[in-house]
Amino acid sequence: MKRTKQERQQKLQETIEETPFITDEELARKFGVSIQTIRLDRMELSIPELRERIKSMAKNNWQETVRALPIDEVIGEIIDLELDQRAISILDIGREHVFSRNKIARGHHLFAQANSLAVAVIDDELALTAKSEIRFKRQVKEGERVVAKATVKGNDDKGRTIVEVNSFVEHERVFTGRFEMYRSNDQKEMHK
Amino acid sequence: MKRTKQERQQKLQETIEETPFITDEELARKFGVSIQTIRLDRMELSIPELRERIKSMAKNNWQETVRALPIDEVIGEIIDLELDQRAISILDIGREHVFSRNKIARGHHLFAQANSLAVAVIDDELALTAKSEIRFKRQVKEGERVVAKATVKGNDDKGRTIVEVNSFVEHERVFTGRFEMYRSNDQKEMHK
Repeated sequence: MKRTKQERQQKLQETIEETPFITDEELARKFGVSIQTIRLDRMELSIPELRERIKSMAKNNWQETVRALPIDEVIGEIIDLELDQRAISILDIGREHVFSRNKIARGHHLFAQANSLAVAVIDDELALTAKSEIRFKRQVKEGERVVAKATVKGNDDKGRTIVEVNSFVEHERVFTGRFEMYRSNDQKEMHK
Repeated sequence: MKRTKQERQQKLQETIEETPFITDEELARKFGVSIQTIRLDRMELSIPELRERIKSMAKNNWQETVRALPIDEVIGEIIDLELDQRAISILDIGREHVFSRNKIARGHHLFAQANSLAVAVIDDELALTAKSEIRFKRQVKEGERVVAKATVKGNDDKGRTIVEVNSFVEHERVFTGRFEMYRSNDQKEMHK
């Protein structure tokens, strides 16, 4: 069923509001039109391109929010964060992140994105990872954008904070991890 | 009990043969003498300094042995490797590996060393991590040397190879991980 231009533009606006880091390529596929059409639609609707949208979100200046580490030590770009609640970051997989042979993203980069997000979400000046269980659900390739979502699940009986991180490429989950985080109230534990 | 010089030199030679990546500082502490004494002992015994010992081991040219990835994609330096059996690598923790605030090594670097060693030890041109459980046992600081030891434990019922990695600073375990590795015989699994 072909949408009218007006219908498509309305849907497009809604889609970008809901999933602001969607690319023009993904939008074109979603709406069954050319990338050029999406670009024209965005111009008519005065919606900036993805790179500008990300920049303006990042300008929210998360450094004033994040406590556990300087913002430039987070792997990936923080897009949303509420301390001790949830956080989102994105990481564009470039050549430096993949095995040279098969262009598959190396596990430790997906781990680093998730782990540093788990550190950043903690409302404490000292946050360290004690333990982690992770799964790589499918291969991620060069050029893909990984969106990591961290959710704080609460504290366990040892006073460690449990953070769950799920990472997606478009709507497909590619990584999941459970992180047990120390915070400074049990800092002594780490020096045993 | 004070050893004679001859006794000490004999012990020193044995110690270096058993644990070839021990530093002069560690040797001095172990034998209760000054670093200068250790250096003189080494000169008399014609034992090269640590950096040279590592270089000569690395010259064993592990690239001809490792199958799953180019040797320069291994994080850390491979010191010993027997495919599908065991492997050892060392990683010197520098400024680029630590949190700027507290000089504690970031978890993803210890993970990267262990994970890439788990990949390297697999006797297959395609090896990917499916799942991992890890624990950070104690903080690692800038300037410390991490020795990671990977042991292949065999295959599970899904045909994945289990690799256990334990990482040490001197004789203290700082990291432990269990990695479930895909190999190309179940490569289709990854494309589901």
